[in-house]
Amino acid sequence: MLSIKFDVRFYETDGLQHVGNTALVGWFETARLPIFKFFTPTLDLNNWPLILANYNVDFLEQIYLADPVEIKTWISHIGNSSFVVYQEVWQSDTKKAKGTTTLVRFDYASKKAVRIPDDIRAMLEEHKIDLE
Amino acid sequence: MLSIKFDVRFYETDGLQHVGNTALVGWFETARLPIFKFFTPTLDLNNWPLILANYNVDFLEQIYLADPVEIKTWISHIGNSSFVVYQEVWQSDTKKAKGTTTLVRFDYASKKAVRIPDDIRAMLEEHKIDLE
Amino acid sequence: MLSIKFDVRFYETDGLQHVGNTALVGWFETARLPIFKFFTPTLDLNNWPLILANYNVDFLEQIYLADPVEIKTWISHIGNSSFVVYQEVWQSDTKKAKGTTTLVRFDYASKKAVRIPDDIRAMLEEHKIDLE
Amino acid sequence: MLSIKFDVRFYETDGLQHVGNTALVGWFETARLPIFKFFTPTLDLNNWPLILANYNVDFLEQIYLADPVEIKTWISHIGNSSFVVYQEVWQSDTKKAKGTTTLVRFDYASKKAVRIPDDIRAMLEEHKIDLE
Repeated sequence: MLSIKFDVRFYETDGLQHVGNTALVGWFETARLPIFKFFTPTLDLNNWPLILANYNVDFLEQIYLADPVEIKTWISHIGNSSFVVYQEVWQSDTKKAKGTTTLVRFDYASKKAVRIPDDIRAMLEEHKIDLE
Repeated sequence: MLSIKFDVRFYETDGLQHVGNTALVGWFETARLPIFKFFTPTLDLNNWPLILANYNVDFLEQIYLADPVEIKTWISHIGNSSFVVYQEVWQSDTKKAKGTTTLVRFDYASKKAVRIPDDIRAMLEEHKIDLE
Repeated sequence: MLSIKFDVRFYETDGLQHVGNTALVGWFETARLPIFKFFTPTLDLNNWPLILANYNVDFLEQIYLADPVEIKTWISHIGNSSFVVYQEVWQSDTKKAKGTTTLVRFDYASKKAVRIPDDIRAMLEEHKIDLE
Repeated sequence: MLSIKFDVRFYETDGLQHVGNTALVGWFETARLPIFKFFTPTLDLNNWPLILANYNVDFLEQIYLADPVEIKTWISHIGNSSFVVYQEVWQSDTKKAKGTTTLVRFDYASKKAVRIPDDIRAMLEEHKIDLE
């Protein structure tokens, strides 16, 4: 499991005085930074190896400004060229949201999916979670 | 069907020189403004009648800065207190992304779901689409 | 004078139930799109001709969700390689904010400022405003 | 001096493969969180004591995705009801940007500026910097 903690940013609250739903995909992306580094340790934008195919987020409880949040990140599925990241948002000991993101090992030049190499596959396996 | 068209904002592009995935939920929210007005014509933030329970977005093709986008919005399901919005992003005559958002008629004071009134139900029905 | 009008996006409101200050630089950037096209009609990101050196925004009145906004854009100064864009945010017949942005004609490869060509200079002149 | 460090968020990069200018005011706001707590230790949105009057940011060098950033925050001026926050963005031992933000002790109900109380004034003084 990977984890990052940070304070809610004021501009991420919305007129309902809670964190707006649009902030969460940005948080999840930020928490995937270590996974990006599995694929490109230098974060080389000119040879970026991944593309996002889907995200699906369940909002369980409202998230507020005053307390820090933690994003927990696991890998829930590893396919041939794609894999699924499972993430949770925690605040004040409560699971506030959860979501999955499907990423594809992708060659931007040929616009084709590419098999995930075995060494990276092993790194992903270390963060595997079984969801039923 | 509801529709809005706008130019991509420069800051919505990311280091891959396409629109970043995180922008889309903001676009979808913006395109739901007429639906928010079904529930609160004055957009009264102190009596906001809806909460978001889930979004699920499929990214089909990359979206670029140079051409305007259109967001098409339909209602795909109407339940007792919840309903599902189905939306598509079009650019250059291509469907670039599609997604669903589940919203719940909600009372923030009691934190309880509330039945969608019949008059609003009728407004939602006018934008109904059948997805199989 | 250049002008664009649009609805406030829900996620641009913050916990104070008005538009958060951070949204405005994004609005101003979006309203500069026609100026970007003076320099690169195709908006070619691989040969982008401008870099931002400064922005300075005065917030005069609170901006709210319910009413559309208009961004008015002028050129207030044209130098050798740099120029200044002056912009105002209007809502409900009230000037809500104003700001300047200093942009530089820039060569990203050599990291050097470049003189603004005469044909573009003429296009900028058409939108000139005198501020004392 | 107050300081926070964090990784650049992927979505904060733009099509020029550097951090977009619009991200910085959000970073500066985030770094002001301890100052907000001087005025409202619980971050109570229903009695928010401050409003933003101006920001002015100089962009000195491009900021990139790969390295963490640090935001350094000082108070450069304390007036009767207003004060000025001076902030710098550092990355890879280089000062990349600097800016000032003018905030006003504000009563949202009466829409009037309010004198900064002495105890808060003392807290601000502890982070004072002299800029010439």
